[in-house]
Amino acid sequence: MKSHNHAFGKALRELRKTKNLSQETLAFEAGLDRTYISLLELGQRSPTLDSMMALCHALKITLTQFVTAIEAGMEKQHE
Amino acid sequence: MKSHNHAFGKALRELRKTKNLSQETLAFEAGLDRTYISLLELGQRSPTLDSMMALCHALKITLTQFVTAIEAGMEKQHE
Repeated sequence: MKSHNHAFGKALRELRKTKNLSQETLAFEAGLDRTYISLLELGQRSPTLDSMMALCHALKITLTQFVTAIEAGMEKQHE
Repeated sequence: MKSHNHAFGKALRELRKTKNLSQETLAFEAGLDRTYISLLELGQRSPTLDSMMALCHALKITLTQFVTAIEAGMEKQHE
């Protein structure tokens, strides 16, 4: 699997936990499937921009904030 | 169609032109189909993170730079 999808999944899980949301609640708020959220967090799916925007809306963050968290995770993988 | 996909398409076209690349050359460099690049630029597809990373690599920019360009375009749409 590609490292950026893993970095995305890790950032998603961390952001979700920071907001004290379950996968079920996040899925509901974002209008996505709970199983899809689970696969994203495991880095086993490459999210579309549509999904990313829905998750940003549900997590109340901007896309820039999300991507900053992803890139921080990718740099860590290269250390 | 969703405004973020349009903003993405517009940012992609502008970044490609700044680098003086044709759709064909960008497609080749990114390992994507030329038709897919065309649909993305028209905002008619929602790119996956895989595609975005491939395009960043071909355009020699970071994902943060790309997203900054997308969000600038989205703010313009809301003005």
